[in-house]
Amino acid sequence: MAAPAHPFGMRVLVPFAAERPKTRLDGLFDAAERRAFARAMLDDVLAAVRAAGHEPTVLATAPVEVDAPVEVDERALSPAVNDALADAGPAADDPVAVVMADLALATPAAVGRLAAAQGPVVAVPGRGGGTNALVVRHPSFRVDYHGASFLDHRRVAAALDADVTVVDSYRLSTDVDEPADLVEVLLHGEGRAADWLADAGVELAVDEGRVTVDRE
Amino acid sequence: MAAPAHPFGMRVLVPFAAERPKTRLDGLFDAAERRAFARAMLDDVLAAVRAAGHEPTVLATAPVEVDAPVEVDERALSPAVNDALADAGPAADDPVAVVMADLALATPAAVGRLAAAQGPVVAVPGRGGGTNALVVRHPSFRVDYHGASFLDHRRVAAALDADVTVVDSYRLSTDVDEPADLVEVLLHGEGRAADWLADAGVELAVDEGRVTVDRE
Repeated sequence: MAAPAHPFGMRVLVPFAAERPKTRLDGLFDAAERRAFARAMLDDVLAAVRAAGHEPTVLATAPVEVDAPVEVDERALSPAVNDALADAGPAADDPVAVVMADLALATPAAVGRLAAAQGPVVAVPGRGGGTNALVVRHPSFRVDYHGASFLDHRRVAAALDADVTVVDSYRLSTDVDEPADLVEVLLHGEGRAADWLADAGVELAVDEGRVTVDRE
Repeated sequence: MAAPAHPFGMRVLVPFAAERPKTRLDGLFDAAERRAFARAMLDDVLAAVRAAGHEPTVLATAPVEVDAPVEVDERALSPAVNDALADAGPAADDPVAVVMADLALATPAAVGRLAAAQGPVVAVPGRGGGTNALVVRHPSFRVDYHGASFLDHRRVAAALDADVTVVDSYRLSTDVDEPADLVEVLLHGEGRAADWLADAGVELAVDEGRVTVDRE
């Protein structure tokens, strides 16, 4: 039996908007804080990918110092990911994953379920129609992250006659964009992003049975 | 080996607010429509529980005609569920589950993962701090659905020295309360609730990359 092409696990691209991340959190955090919080989430995602036995590469819009190889591509998300996918050359026995950098609830177990799912295209929906994670084993699959990308990715796969396997994970379906999403990080986060929020004075607030966040 | 106490699977309580459900959808639907939509979601949950091989009982605030046994209890959610739990008498080898009636994305596979999870208390968080599903194998565990109930249920279990096993399911973590939740039903629903929304003229709307709903 030949040695596997990537003995250290699945290759995982982690796109990261290094410069003006998380603008929808601007009511709570200034620009420097948003960059720091985005960076904490990225660190959590990289740690979960590594702990699950896989090989992350950060695909960043600007140079960033992290504990992983970094490729800089200033273009928009979809063309940058598509060029990186084409370069990586996914194959049936050598998948390439794309995992968003704002999945602050990612755990090694959740990443492990993603990597264990079979099929030419594996997808995890994000809340609101996005696509939070993909595992690509079909050499011709390409991404389109604009709008309701989960439906678009189903169409792209159907055009290739490739089945889509959907992984049912609350942790991986939770991308962090809006203040309401911080509730999830405070309740279920186990890493640096949750610690960063606590250090920033962000706390749960229960108001008439609904849970929101307050900043001290 | 003795015959199992419940040969048709796990007992599953499904609490249902029969009279004024889903008030946060009042911008889209009138009261009769909200009742019909809530009922469609209940039917989907019951179908998923049954197809997974388990035995649902509806715990309703008023009589309702459904394809399952119904117990009527007019009280608030927590005391009603706690009395039903005490009556059912959960045990290590004879669990009792509590599954919310508004989990419109529930599938037999997701319910199967819930039932397969081990431990004295199994929980699925809802978005925003709630508890969408529980499997109780500890005879003394009681619920408290007010506020951030997921944290409360962790505390209740800790006081009993009982571990909490968390099931990581986007489908079961998605309870449908607000218009934004309808996006998830339209995108990922496979049952009557999704059909009801389509019949009511509710459609996805993509606006500057964000996905919402419109009603025709």
